[in-house]
Amino acid sequence: MEKDNPIGVFDSGIGGLSVLKQFIRFLPYEKYIYLGDTARVPYGNKSPETVIKYSIECAEFLLKQNVKLIVVACNTASSIALDELRKLTNIPIIGMIHPAATSALRETINKRIGVIGTRATIMSKSYNNIINELSNNKVDIFSKACPLFVPLVEEGWEKHPATKLIVEDYLTELKEKQIDTLVLGCTHYPLLKEAISEFMPGVNLIDSGEHAAVYALRILAEQKLLTEEKKEFIQKPHINFFVTDLLDNFEKIARRFLGFDIQKPIKINYDWNY
Amino acid sequence: MEKDNPIGVFDSGIGGLSVLKQFIRFLPYEKYIYLGDTARVPYGNKSPETVIKYSIECAEFLLKQNVKLIVVACNTASSIALDELRKLTNIPIIGMIHPAATSALRETINKRIGVIGTRATIMSKSYNNIINELSNNKVDIFSKACPLFVPLVEEGWEKHPATKLIVEDYLTELKEKQIDTLVLGCTHYPLLKEAISEFMPGVNLIDSGEHAAVYALRILAEQKLLTEEKKEFIQKPHINFFVTDLLDNFEKIARRFLGFDIQKPIKINYDWNY
Repeated sequence: MEKDNPIGVFDSGIGGLSVLKQFIRFLPYEKYIYLGDTARVPYGNKSPETVIKYSIECAEFLLKQNVKLIVVACNTASSIALDELRKLTNIPIIGMIHPAATSALRETINKRIGVIGTRATIMSKSYNNIINELSNNKVDIFSKACPLFVPLVEEGWEKHPATKLIVEDYLTELKEKQIDTLVLGCTHYPLLKEAISEFMPGVNLIDSGEHAAVYALRILAEQKLLTEEKKEFIQKPHINFFVTDLLDNFEKIARRFLGFDIQKPIKINYDWNY
Repeated sequence: MEKDNPIGVFDSGIGGLSVLKQFIRFLPYEKYIYLGDTARVPYGNKSPETVIKYSIECAEFLLKQNVKLIVVACNTASSIALDELRKLTNIPIIGMIHPAATSALRETINKRIGVIGTRATIMSKSYNNIINELSNNKVDIFSKACPLFVPLVEEGWEKHPATKLIVEDYLTELKEKQIDTLVLGCTHYPLLKEAISEFMPGVNLIDSGEHAAVYALRILAEQKLLTEEKKEFIQKPHINFFVTDLLDNFEKIARRFLGFDIQKPIKINYDWNY
C-alpha cells in the first residue's frame, strides 16, 4: 500500500463534505477522493438492505481508485453497512459512530448522552449499542430522529425562525432529560450547531466528522500510511470530486459546507459495475 | 387492449397516493397498480437526465403488467420525462401538468396564477410553458420552489407552528403578486391545503391529482376503455402496491394519504430489467 494513495470518502450526497472539511483540518497534506451518491440521496429514509447495497457500490468505486483508507461519511451508512463493507477489503474503513461514541463517553460528566440523526440511524440503535458496550451500560442514552434538519440546512435556513421552532420541537425531550453531551449524528447537523446551542446552552456538541478525522490520523500513523509532509504550509487541498448525479446547486452547497470553492465534480454511474 | 386491464400509477415514492386517491374517487371500479420508487425517492432534487432514466424504468415495469393507461403521479417526472415516456408505448400517458394547467387557466379571473412545486419542477418551467402556450401569454405566472413542504408533510406536521412560518416565507411573494389561483404542483401539497388557505384566504387551490383523474376518465371513455360498472356501490378499491424499497412507515404514511388501510406492498428491484 502506497503512502501517497488517496483517502476515499463517500456519502449519500453533499453532507459528507462537513466530514471532509474536518479531515482537511487534521490531515491537510493527504489526497482525497470524494464520492457523493447524489442520484439516490438521501439514505436516511431507506431500508437497511438498500443502504447496504448502495454503500457497497460506493466503496467498490473507491477501492478501484486505489484508496488507502475509506471514510464512510454518512452516519446512516456507518450505522448499518460497516460490517458488510469490511468484508470487501483489508484497508481501514472509518465510520462515524465509534469515534463519536467514544468521544461522547469521554466528555460526558453526568453520564446522560443525547444522540440525534436520521430516522434510519436512530432506528438502527448503532450509537446506543456501542455506547452501552463501551460503558457497560453505565450511561443513559436518549435518542431522537430529526428528519427536518437536513432539508433546513439544504435550504440555508440555519438562522430562520422556523428552524428555531423545529429545534425546540425535536430537542425539548432531550433537554428535559438533562443531557450534558449531544452527538450530532448526521453530516448536516454541524451547520445547526449555533441554533442547537442557543436552545441547549452548555450542552457539549459532538461533531462526528471531527472525531472520525482524528481517529483516521491515528490509524494511518500506526500503519505508517501517512503521506510525507509537504514543505509548503499554505496549499490548496487536493480533492477529486465524483457524484452519481450532476446537480446544478452542488458547487454552491459545497461552498457552504467546505468554506472554499471546489472544481466541478465528475459524474459516474452508480451502476458502473454492470 | 382489454377494458379490464389495470391503470398503472407511478411516483417517486409515497406522495403519488394523493393522486391515486383522486383516481379512486372518480374511477372507483378500475383496478390499479401503484409503483413507488422508494429506493430512489425523491426525484425533485435530481437532474433531468436522472429523472428521465428513473421514470422510464418505472413505466417499463408498469407496461409489463399490461396496464391500459399510465398515470405519472410525480409532478417532477411529469415535468421532465413525459415526452420520453410517450416513445415507449401507444397507450395513454397522463401527466400532472397539462390537466392542472388547463384547470388553472379556466378558473383564474384576474389572470394571475401561482405555481409551487419541487426545485426540479419549478426549474423545468413545465407549467409556465403550457400555460403560456394555451393562453397565448395572456396570463401572468409566478412560481416558487418549496422544498421543505415534502418533509413537513412526511413528518405529519401540517398544523405545526413551524409549518405556518415556512408557508409564510415561501408564499409571501406570491401573495404580494395577488394571484387568485395556485397550482399545487407536487403530490404532497394537497395535505397542506388548510395551512396554505389560512395564509392566502380566497385563493383557489388547484389539486393536480384531481384534474388528472377527471382527464383520465375522459380519455378512457373516448377510447372505450372504461371497465364495466359493477353493481355493488360499496366496495374496496382494487389496488396492487409495488415499491423499490420496503419502508416500515409506508403503510402508516399511506393511510394518511389515502384515508384507508392498505395491504403490504411488494418489493421489486428498480434494476429488475438488468
